[in-house]
Formats: sequence, C-alpha cells, structure tokens
Amino acid sequence: MRCRKCGEKAVINMRQHRLSLCAEHYLEWIPQQVQRHIEKYEMFSFDDKILVAVSGGKDSLALWNILNGLGYKTEGVYIDLGIDEGIDYSRNSRLTVESFAENNQLPIHLINMQKKHGETIPEINQRTHRGRRNPCSVCGLVKRHVLNQFSLDGSFDVIVTGHNLDDEAAILLANTLDWSLEFLSRGYPVLPAKPGFTRKAKPFCRIYERESAAYTILRKINFINSECPFSIDSKQIYYKEILNQWEDDKPGTKLRFYLHYLKTLDQGAFPRGQENDQELIDQQCPNCGQPTNTGGLCAFCQIFEVK
Amino acid sequence: MRCRKCGEKAVINMRQHRLSLCAEHYLEWIPQQVQRHIEKYEMFSFDDKILVAVSGGKDSLALWNILNGLGYKTEGVYIDLGIDEGIDYSRNSRLTVESFAENNQLPIHLINMQKKHGETIPEINQRTHRGRRNPCSVCGLVKRHVLNQFSLDGSFDVIVTGHNLDDEAAILLANTLDWSLEFLSRGYPVLPAKPGFTRKAKPFCRIYERESAAYTILRKINFINSECPFSIDSKQIYYKEILNQWEDDKPGTKLRFYLHYLKTLDQGAFPRGQENDQELIDQQCPNCGQPTNTGGLCAFCQIFEVK
Repeated sequence: MRCRKCGEKAVINMRQHRLSLCAEHYLEWIPQQVQRHIEKYEMFSFDDKILVAVSGGKDSLALWNILNGLGYKTEGVYIDLGIDEGIDYSRNSRLTVESFAENNQLPIHLINMQKKHGETIPEINQRTHRGRRNPCSVCGLVKRHVLNQFSLDGSFDVIVTGHNLDDEAAILLANTLDWSLEFLSRGYPVLPAKPGFTRKAKPFCRIYERESAAYTILRKINFINSECPFSIDSKQIYYKEILNQWEDDKPGTKLRFYLHYLKTLDQGAFPRGQENDQELIDQQCPNCGQPTNTGGLCAFCQIFEVK
Repeated sequence: MRCRKCGEKAVINMRQHRLSLCAEHYLEWIPQQVQRHIEKYEMFSFDDKILVAVSGGKDSLALWNILNGLGYKTEGVYIDLGIDEGIDYSRNSRLTVESFAENNQLPIHLINMQKKHGETIPEINQRTHRGRRNPCSVCGLVKRHVLNQFSLDGSFDVIVTGHNLDDEAAILLANTLDWSLEFLSRGYPVLPAKPGFTRKAKPFCRIYERESAAYTILRKINFINSECPFSIDSKQIYYKEILNQWEDDKPGTKLRFYLHYLKTLDQGAFPRGQENDQELIDQQCPNCGQPTNTGGLCAFCQIFEVK
C-alpha cells in the first residue's frame, strides 16, 4: 500500500475514497478537506470569532488543531459536566483540554456545571425523570443551552463542534427510521444564527471517525479515548454499530447516505422549519432570556425550577 | 403463552403487536387486518375485478386465499419465467399454483415467457448486459410489463401482489440509503390507475413475512419455500437481513419505519411524481402501445429489439 501522492509507504487506506496516503500527505490532506467543506457549506470566514466546543475527545481536539492551523480565530470552551463514574471522566477530560490549550497557546474557557448551576449532570439525571430515562438527552440539552449562552455573552459569531460523519450518519439513521420530519429538516451541517441563537457549524461533517482518529494519533495529540460512561447504551452507539457493519460490506455507505440526504434537503424534500424571527424574540424565557417555544420557562430552566 | 381472545394455548406471539393468538383466532385475525388495510388505503372494492399475481410462494397464495375468503372477485395469473437452475424452480412453482387454483376452484391464467416472448428470463439475462449485472432488475421489469399488459387486455380494475411488510421495508431502506426521491415518492401501497396503467395494490403491506408464513402453514396451503435462485445475492435480501437484526433488538421496528414513512408521504415530504395524463397517452411505445417515457421503444420492447 503506497501513498498516492509520493509513492512512500502509506499509513492509511481510505477505501471509501479509494485513497492511500503516507503520514505527511495525510496530515496535509485532512485540513484541505475540512477547508473545502467549510467553504462549500458556507460555515464561517477568517474574520469570524469562532467558539470551539471541546470535550477532550479526538474529534474536537483535532478540529481545534486544524482550524487553528488553517488560520481561523478560535477560542475553546470546555464544560465540566462533573461526570466521575469511577473513572474520573470529567476531570481527566478537563486536564487533557487544558494541557492541549497550553501546549498550543490557545485560549480556553472553562465552565463548571457544579459551580455555575449548582449541579453536575449525574446529579440532574438522578433527580429528574427525563434524566433517569435518557441521560444523553438531558446532557445534550444542558450543553446546547450553556454553549449558546456563553457564545452570546462573548459575542462569538459561530459555535463549532467536532461531530464527525459517523455521528451525523448515526443520528440521521435514527431520525430516518422514525421519519421525524422536524429533525430531518434540521440536519444541515450549518444552522444559521437567529435572534438569541448563535450560528452552529460542524466542519467535520464529512470526516470519518476513523480519519479523525488517525489525524489525532499522527499529530500526537493527547486525547481522552473512553466514551462517556453514560452513553454506553445510547441509541447513537447502536446505530453507529449498524452503520459500521454496512460500511464494512460497502465502503462509502455512510458518506453516500449523508451526502444524498443533504442533496435531498437542497431539493426541498423536508421543508425547513423557519420560525418567524419576531416570534422568537417575543418568546423569551423569563428566567434566562434565551428564546423558547414552551410559552414559559425554557427547557433548561425548567430542569432547575423543579428542584 | 395464551391466546388473548380465548385463553387457549397460543400458536404465535407477535411481539410487535404484543399479541398472542391460538390457531383459530389467528386465522380470523389476519384476514380482518388485511380487510382493514384494504379499506384504509382505499385499495379496491368488492365490485372490482381483481388480478392476483401469484408466484407459488407463501405470500401470494396466502393473499389469494384471503381475498377469496373475504368475498372479493379474483382471478390469478402466473408468469412462467422459465427458471430451472437445477431445481426446476419455475416448473415446481407453476404446479403449486395450478394445484392451489384447482383445489380452491379459482380461475388461473398462465403466461409462458418462452412461448409468448420467445425467451426465458435466464436466456434474457445471459444475452443482455443489464441482465448479467442485475438479473432481478430485468425480471422485475418483465413482470411489471407482462402483468400490466395482461390486466389491460382482460379489463381488470386492479393488479394485486403479495409484497409483505418485510419486502416493503427492505426496499424502503435501500431507497432511503440512496435518498432516491423518485422511488421514495412512489412507495405508497396503492398506485392509482393512469392511462395505459392498471391500478396496483399491496394488501399485505403491513403483514410481516413471518405472519404470512404462519397463516399459510396453519391454513395448510402448499407453497414453494425456496427463494428464486437468482435472487440469493440480491440487494433486497441484504437489507432484509439488516432489518431482521433490528427487529430482533426492537420489535416493531419494520412496522414503525414503514408507517412513519407513509405518514411522511401524506405530509407531502416527497412530492409525488404526477405525470400529466395526456403526456402519457402521447408517449406510447410504437411496438406494444404501453406508455413510456423513453421517447422510443419502452424498456421492455428494447430488451427484445437488440436480439
């Protein structure tokens, strides 16, 4: 297996792209791909103030490394969810993120759920019905709210996350099985800014998990390898396994599935929910001020109200 | 495991419906379900002249038996495709169909590809590029054409086929992975009549393959158990296996997937291709007269033209 660019020994063979590359050319190729996707989906520009949500996992750190290398103005944010579960999950993640930021001389913001909102994610999960039933759902809600608030307070133009193709394809498959039009209409890799909501983008939307992992390892970026202990049985992991089988049988399946879906979106198959901007402004949570369609407290503030 | 209706020993447990039934109540229940679906999707009425496409397999024979039992006016049609492959596939299928028709005193029409069109399916497949690459695709095309022609010649109101939920869900999954809007817009269990095309309906669209098999066995209907030897590696069987795994993990997955999709269709997610009726009449195949959008010979007649 030889590198297609220089003929040296390849370190990775990407069957889905019919492309093998050596370490040097792979480390060049991935950022080029990411830049191409940022432009293609009009995610952000070099003038934008970008908030990178980092977890300490391979995807978000690789993304931050690449955006910084490409010359984007980035700051990192880490939310300490207070997850221990016998493996010091959050603490180790935070230390990994802090050390990455220090080594690369990049600004990092730390938000501690316990200090800022008085409760860790496991505490919220134990206390609430929704949390006991579906811990990932509560955690996602909390993270979205906290990130959005932080980006608004800091006047960031865009929040970027490290969701890779495997993540996007798995969520898409789950939403497709349910044919949930609301979610299917919102699967685009950029969600535009709206009053009270910062723009969101996923520059790794077309990067396979395996590609992102290879990049992180070849770049010698230290990352937390373990999955969140709460997500072990999650729906997303279930669908990822199905897609992995499929990908094994037919390389390129995940990418094809995702790209054809984006094309379908462009063709107007799932009318995108266009909330009226004025309505959003009119419906603010009386507690935090973020837009909501609940008619009262937003879903985030509701969690803390019932304490 | 007890029958929910009478408390006797159950012969089948349908986890997806949370329902166990004894033989007697199961044989009552399935036709009731089919009748409900015929009405719900407005497939046909008791006045319609119905052509049942039978293959000798469990689904089409169970369907014919049920429609007849419900009091519909049915005639069967069997296409002898001339498939042997060392197991006398077509011959055995034909004998099974003929004996079923005779035992139930139902009219059966036999169409022999070799006699009527000069070639069997294996012969066509060997001669044509498309047939060598994808034998099921050619066979499907041929069957659709021949059935449609026969139904037009005999003034039938509707053609019904034994496609079950497993078939429909597998095709849907394949089309979804490709996000092929053309096919996704045509997945409804009834295709209305159009100039040159007889209405088509799938009364078993919500009946699991396993339910249909159980019905056939309990009714002591003799059927051909083997799959068509050409279809062994087909795409459809691949997707069926994936769905079976899924169904094992989460009973009801296939039904949920299919029903949510139908709801999506109703909500107009995939605009249904509404060809202009006059255009269809204007575009007739110069050889057979069936509507076509090729601008010349229809796809069926093209197969025989290149001989």
